Amino acid sequence: MKIGNITEMQPQEINNGQILKRVLVGPKDGAPNFVMRLFTLKPGASTPYHTHPWEHEIFVVDGDIEVVQKDTRTKVSKGAFIYVEPNEEHQFHNYSDKEASFICVIPKEGGE
Amino acid sequence: MKIGNITEMQPQEINNGQILKRVLVGPKDGAPNFVMRLFTLKPGASTPYHTHPWEHEIFVVDGDIEVVQKDTRTKVSKGAFIYVEPNEEHQFHNYSDKEASFICVIPKEGGE
Repeated sequence: MKIGNITEMQPQEINNGQILKRVLVGPKDGAPNFVMRLFTLKPGASTPYHTHPWEHEIFVVDGDIEVVQKDTRTKVSKGAFIYVEPNEEHQFHNYSDKEASFICVIPKEGGE
Repeated sequence: MKIGNITEMQPQEINNGQILKRVLVGPKDGAPNFVMRLFTLKPGASTPYHTHPWEHEIFVVDGDIEVVQKDTRTKVSKGAFIYVEPNEEHQFHNYSDKEASFICVIPKEGGE
């Protein structure tokens, strides 16, 4: 068993610290199938609009996020869950004035 | 893509409502590899002390939980993450006087 807390971890900074990434559980811990990550978006920050062959299973832990798809933008908040299919275009944008965080799980084929 | 919020879902009640279970994303949505569930433990509630061949990847969303292992009990709170290895004995106990919730992801072999 591995037990930790995000407050004890140094996050990886992406886009000059606009996005913080923490790999909570993954292959380095011996996890055989999937990787649990936590992303924190600073106010105004966005993940890339992109696609990849693996799915996302997401849970919004804190804050307000806009889910950007090809033709729609959907505002979600704490308690929201999102399934992004393999090869589906997607982006997450923090449109608010406070930080937003979400859990994002991917299969190990997606790396970390 | 599927987008929802836990406030819009009717949870499954376990142990006379002491435990609430919500399957957020899984095979019914077409998810090919793993299942994201949210469990809410009422004050004093415990999951069974048990083991199974699949792993857990867990994130504590709210509240205070005691992680029970064979020889140790570890108190964790919001922001904690837990990796339970396949076949490892484990139990989660809400020792506090308010609800506690955690995300628990399993491979699809574990059912829902």
